[in-house]
Amino acid sequence: MKIAVLPGDGIGTEIVAEAVKVLKALDLKFEMETAPVGGAAYEAAGHPLPESTLALAKSADAILFGAVGDWKYDKLDRPLRPEQAILGLRKALGLFANFRPAICYEQLTHASSLKPELVAGLDILIIRELTGDIYFGQPRGRRTAVDGHFPGAEEAFDTMRYSRPEIERIARVAFEAARKRSKRVTSVDKANVLETFQLWKDVVTEAHKDYPDVALDHMYVDNAAMQLVKAPKAFDVIVTGNMFGDILSDEASMLTGSIGMLPSASLNDKKQGLYEPSHGSAPDIAGKGVANPLATILSAAMMLRFSLNQPEAADRIETAVKKVLAQGLRTPDIYSDGTTKVGTVQMGDAVVNAL
Amino acid sequence: MKIAVLPGDGIGTEIVAEAVKVLKALDLKFEMETAPVGGAAYEAAGHPLPESTLALAKSADAILFGAVGDWKYDKLDRPLRPEQAILGLRKALGLFANFRPAICYEQLTHASSLKPELVAGLDILIIRELTGDIYFGQPRGRRTAVDGHFPGAEEAFDTMRYSRPEIERIARVAFEAARKRSKRVTSVDKANVLETFQLWKDVVTEAHKDYPDVALDHMYVDNAAMQLVKAPKAFDVIVTGNMFGDILSDEASMLTGSIGMLPSASLNDKKQGLYEPSHGSAPDIAGKGVANPLATILSAAMMLRFSLNQPEAADRIETAVKKVLAQGLRTPDIYSDGTTKVGTVQMGDAVVNAL
Ligand SMILES: CC(C)[C@H](C(=O)O)[C@@H](O)C(=O)O
Ligand SMILES: CC(C)[C@H](C(=O)O)[C@@H](O)C(=O)O
Repeated sequence: MKIAVLPGDGIGTEIVAEAVKVLKALDLKFEMETAPVGGAAYEAAGHPLPESTLALAKSADAILFGAVGDWKYDKLDRPLRPEQAILGLRKALGLFANFRPAICYEQLTHASSLKPELVAGLDILIIRELTGDIYFGQPRGRRTAVDGHFPGAEEAFDTMRYSRPEIERIARVAFEAARKRSKRVTSVDKANVLETFQLWKDVVTEAHKDYPDVALDHMYVDNAAMQLVKAPKAFDVIVTGNMFGDILSDEASMLTGSIGMLPSASLNDKKQGLYEPSHGSAPDIAGKGVANPLATILSAAMMLRFSLNQPEAADRIETAVKKVLAQGLRTPDIYSDGTTKVGTVQMGDAVVNAL
Repeated sequence: MKIAVLPGDGIGTEIVAEAVKVLKALDLKFEMETAPVGGAAYEAAGHPLPESTLALAKSADAILFGAVGDWKYDKLDRPLRPEQAILGLRKALGLFANFRPAICYEQLTHASSLKPELVAGLDILIIRELTGDIYFGQPRGRRTAVDGHFPGAEEAFDTMRYSRPEIERIARVAFEAARKRSKRVTSVDKANVLETFQLWKDVVTEAHKDYPDVALDHMYVDNAAMQLVKAPKAFDVIVTGNMFGDILSDEASMLTGSIGMLPSASLNDKKQGLYEPSHGSAPDIAGKGVANPLATILSAAMMLRFSLNQPEAADRIETAVKKVLAQGLRTPDIYSDGTTKVGTVQMGDAVVNAL
């Protein structure tokens, strides 16, 4: 088994180092190989996703990814910007199924913007389609408008699209995931306006026939954005497209108040996966040794479960993380009165000790 | 001056009746004419936006709109569904500038899902472009995929697009609005992924040169969805496209916890406008006399200010609404211990008395 380790930019290096430390402490048999990605790769090799990094990622069973991006790359042409690495990896490896849990840890309930009773025990799973939609649809670009409000003016355009099999496979992923949870799926669309999401709704409804034990409901994306604020615990599994999933999964993760705790997984149909924290590269705190490594450590646990067939090892990591929280250890992002403030490395060490 | 009164479906009739009562009590000179719209129009005339209703709307200086929609129309073909009336009115009248305030009233702070300190005094204005984007872009439809992940499969597609002048005019509306407020505009885009929103960002940045007294920042839509939950008071004016604005304005209105209080305005370049509550037709409580008419009454105030050139009358209504809240009167949606529960008609009467 091979893990490609891509730390990336900002706090990426620091948090991935802790996850690697935890993985090594498990004493399992796998190879790890590190390569640059994002801004770091642009600096080293002139491209955010160099050939060699992509080749490593393709050859690996799983990718442990830190984060990419920094303000200093904002002025680069779009194809050279750090985030192109992540879009490139998703596309090249066909990582169509993005799992984004939004979990509120008991000890961190107070950190949420929401009233404690609305988020205590929150455990929802957002499944976002990750290789289709307006992210990758062609044609796109700039041109002279021939119709619309201002014919003759310069316009820019993108294409939203989904095919039947693309929708069906992500719907099945959602129904299967719901079976292992509370057996409820909410499919989020905008079928009242978009052709793409009328097909989405039709295909999800058809696929549902094979999962009579799972309850399905449909919700418009604007309403979903509201219901997440109003009563997040009413959801179990949410399945939606790439664009809506981008927005709703970030909204949901912020509801927990502890985005530094949330892992994510992006899988293809061969169970190859990219695992990364839900948060970003946080250049403002990079190099200071204060970043929270737990989201990355929990991403490593997802990796063991989904791609490396080591569910017991995944359980061990998750139990260890709960233990360090119970011990009162907190990085600054989740610190509150009466707990013990620790840095990135100390937090990683504590998880290793708790294993 | 002529007002087209379009009550629509569900609670629409009840709440619009109260707004009309308040308008009449002001004793100003304008004509009001009522017409069916949405499901009610489909029942009466076979179409959600009959010719006669559209003609009335076009000939009026302003439209007072209730709400449209009911589950019973879900099975109709899309062109006949109630929400097509609202899309049709926006398009036919060129109502490109949608104003959606998210205000947290002092007495209702506790009703928010968010902790009181995060929303007390909240006053943000979302300006959503309303006649462009993927809502109206052509081509759209179904076809056989020729490329992508599953060539040969059935796919559905839509076109996102914005032209330079469309972006520029809504940006100017936002900068002008900010001038009358805290002079800060946040432009929300997804320039890291979409061609359309790279142009959006470029044009907003250029238009900003004419408003050096207004501060401008840019934020990705996923981040905006998070920051609204984390620190909503950090925003002043948010300007964004039709699709992102649909999602973010609903998210923001729910943050206040009292969506029954939030008005909206949709204007064209001749200051003709459509005024409607931010909430929907709520078929579950229709006909029970319990709907909150205040969002509609406050929409009538916006109408007086923006389209009918009666700012003093608008102020009078807004002051009257604050007065009834101070008197402790509450419809069920905003009721809490120690206040007085009233119905739709009583609330309307109270506003009239407070004028
Ligand atoms: C960086 C960006 C391209 C990316 C996305 O929009 O998918 C990010 O926001 C995410 O959610 O992983
Ligand atoms: C009913 C629907 C078409 C509409 C929209 O998406 O614009 C509604 O959600 C709104 O925000 O006014």
